[in-house]
Amino acid sequence: MRAPRTLHLNTNITGTGRHPAGWRTLDNAKSIIDLQFFTAIAQTAERGKLDAVFLSDAVALAGHAHGPAQSLEPTVLLTALAGVTRHVGLIGTASTTFNDPYNLARCFASVDHLSAGRVAWNAVTTYDPNAAANFSMSGAPDKAARYARAEEFVDVVLKLWDSWEDDALIADRASGRYADPARVHAIEHAGHHFQVRGPLNLPRSPQGRPVLVQAGGSEAGVALAARHADAVFTAQTTFEGAQEFYGDIKARAVAQGRHADHLLVLPGLYPVIGGTLAEARQRKADMDALLDRRTELAKFARALGIDADDLQLDAPLPYALIDKGNRADVSNGFIRTTVLLARSDNLTVRDLLDRNPGAHRMIVGTPETIADDIERWFTGRAADGFNLNADVFPSGLAAFVDHVVPLLQRKGIFRRDYEGTTLREHYGLARPASRYADPDARLVEHTPGALS
Amino acid sequence: MRAPRTLHLNTNITGTGRHPAGWRTLDNAKSIIDLQFFTAIAQTAERGKLDAVFLSDAVALAGHAHGPAQSLEPTVLLTALAGVTRHVGLIGTASTTFNDPYNLARCFASVDHLSAGRVAWNAVTTYDPNAAANFSMSGAPDKAARYARAEEFVDVVLKLWDSWEDDALIADRASGRYADPARVHAIEHAGHHFQVRGPLNLPRSPQGRPVLVQAGGSEAGVALAARHADAVFTAQTTFEGAQEFYGDIKARAVAQGRHADHLLVLPGLYPVIGGTLAEARQRKADMDALLDRRTELAKFARALGIDADDLQLDAPLPYALIDKGNRADVSNGFIRTTVLLARSDNLTVRDLLDRNPGAHRMIVGTPETIADDIERWFTGRAADGFNLNADVFPSGLAAFVDHVVPLLQRKGIFRRDYEGTTLREHYGLARPASRYADPDARLVEHTPGALS
Repeated sequence: MRAPRTLHLNTNITGTGRHPAGWRTLDNAKSIIDLQFFTAIAQTAERGKLDAVFLSDAVALAGHAHGPAQSLEPTVLLTALAGVTRHVGLIGTASTTFNDPYNLARCFASVDHLSAGRVAWNAVTTYDPNAAANFSMSGAPDKAARYARAEEFVDVVLKLWDSWEDDALIADRASGRYADPARVHAIEHAGHHFQVRGPLNLPRSPQGRPVLVQAGGSEAGVALAARHADAVFTAQTTFEGAQEFYGDIKARAVAQGRHADHLLVLPGLYPVIGGTLAEARQRKADMDALLDRRTELAKFARALGIDADDLQLDAPLPYALIDKGNRADVSNGFIRTTVLLARSDNLTVRDLLDRNPGAHRMIVGTPETIADDIERWFTGRAADGFNLNADVFPSGLAAFVDHVVPLLQRKGIFRRDYEGTTLREHYGLARPASRYADPDARLVEHTPGALS
Repeated sequence: MRAPRTLHLNTNITGTGRHPAGWRTLDNAKSIIDLQFFTAIAQTAERGKLDAVFLSDAVALAGHAHGPAQSLEPTVLLTALAGVTRHVGLIGTASTTFNDPYNLARCFASVDHLSAGRVAWNAVTTYDPNAAANFSMSGAPDKAARYARAEEFVDVVLKLWDSWEDDALIADRASGRYADPARVHAIEHAGHHFQVRGPLNLPRSPQGRPVLVQAGGSEAGVALAARHADAVFTAQTTFEGAQEFYGDIKARAVAQGRHADHLLVLPGLYPVIGGTLAEARQRKADMDALLDRRTELAKFARALGIDADDLQLDAPLPYALIDKGNRADVSNGFIRTTVLLARSDNLTVRDLLDRNPGAHRMIVGTPETIADDIERWFTGRAADGFNLNADVFPSGLAAFVDHVVPLLQRKGIFRRDYEGTTLREHYGLARPASRYADPDARLVEHTPGALS
């Protein structure tokens, strides 16, 4: 008998929270380099029995004149958080464009070992041209090139994670046999972007493979997710749109021979919580009052790939100016969801700015409103769960944990305690076997030099 | 008044210790993936007031059929160790051939933040052709190419570590100013190997820059160390040879306009400790009895760049066959020190194997013998301190901490307690200013796109 379907919840840490002025309400405003700040978030998430904390990332500096952004390297920060938590999953973002598959596979597998099986890699391709300028490239590769590399990158990483079979580390003191070379496999990857002999220099990690997450909203991203990902993070602003996305990507996974339950669909959600609706609105208004409006307008225009002068506060978006095609230097997922939202709700630029644009759906409301909305999306198969944005950490998350989680538990759709120890167990995902352990899997030649 | 010269001691973690059969004496022989094992080492080092733990590294698997090797990624493991210690420094090895300077600078600076200023980067160029096969290269670049890249790589990393001035993070809640763009600098590096705009996306770390260590023994390595390194790790097997190396590299540092005390010379030392000489010899003999002699002979031959058939146990090394030139695929430092040792002490292959060849000087003896030897090298300016190898962790290190450290303290050459909190303070090194903070330093153009 299958266990009943259960909601999955991550908290998405971006800077000090999703509200651009949230940091101005913190006692310690330099918190982005303060382990205590992140410890409080992770421990609050664990108190709420959340599946995971999820670190966004970037590899170029932007916007730092006006507020915090991603700073500490994710695998390093997640390792520190593994030491101050026991159950909560640890999801880190890393780019396939600006990393190497051997180093990346090793880093995430190392965190998986040190966290006893709690890590996930959120694979992104990174459209930011400022990032390219930090990695000896004259500009970010175009989307097709980025995804071609990403496909092969993910393939290499998955092979490396499989390169040690589960029982390859013998460590038999009596015979002096340490690892069994017959169960440690060169991967002999010879592709267009990468030639990697392997094996990884690290025994198989507790989850078999770290959980793989994909977050791109484009066609190429969705295709990659359907093939390989255990979970997909997505920006969905309407219930119907989310249902359509959910049905589509599950069908694609099934078409790949996978079980629909083995690809979790987790849209972003940005709740602003108050004891009453008026309190929630006041909380948001207090933070909004601290915003630099000109900066926000400029940031919004840049994200849309247009000039700030083209935006008028009380007019609709200049749809004709916004290129919804495959530009390399913007997030097409952000543009798509923003345009969809603006059109469906007939919003002005001012309305959109009010929602702290970040592609994720905002609900300003009471715990009851928010819990009901979550239940509706979950039972309506618009989502398997959510990536929760907080307006500001840790208070935005604490409000969710203390007031929304108990309602979800009472509805019977969210765990009252952790039942497993690994993130795969929290997510209800099977532990994968190594592809090399199956005698029917394709044969891989050993390389005596590497295995002696 | 300058503080009196003080001894510096690191413990070098390679696998489960330097003796190839040491793992067969451990209760938990799978310890290379066990955080508790490394925690015990780091806490023992801290109990002994050692300057640092130092992780060797490799990015290809070798020898795993017969014993443990480097597995967990160093910056990740050091972060975990930062969480279970308070004072001891944390030195990680990473290759300039198989990494990217932006990612590496960010990882080490992140660990520096999370450890409150205790991290060092040991920069190596990696001669292992098996590593190249994991990074889409047909073979390791030759030594000249590796060091040309290493020079520029280190230059970029140091610039990125300087890219935020100390006081650039304002986080002024009242005005909404987060970072001061005038104190966050694009580095605009445009070199032969790398083009990196910067700045790093992380505020300046507690030590200003993580400590920089260099470990190569070749002419190019020594030249790089003299220019940039805060400490040099070196294989020295004779007192006179070590004195010569010490004098030479200090003179080179002074010739670069540096203070001689700001480049620490730390040779490797491999003590095997017993209450009596007989006990120490027995400890070693017990482990030697667990060795697979054929494997050791093959490993030794491979490290010398020759065939195992060319080695006869009771004959001298076949010096004529051993190429002491600049081969790309072996450690020339290892060959140099091994040949020097074999010639000076007139050793047979069996004698050399007895010393568990690893390029580092072995002393089998009592705490008194070992402390006296350390004092002689220290006061004779053959060393500023040592990288201590243990035969097996944690017992080999515990013996040193419990029995040798008190003797060194009584001699007045080693600290009785930590006096500072950062590794720079343990090492007696000044905290560097950002090169961009000096108005006389070369002007760097801002890049508005990256800094807005």
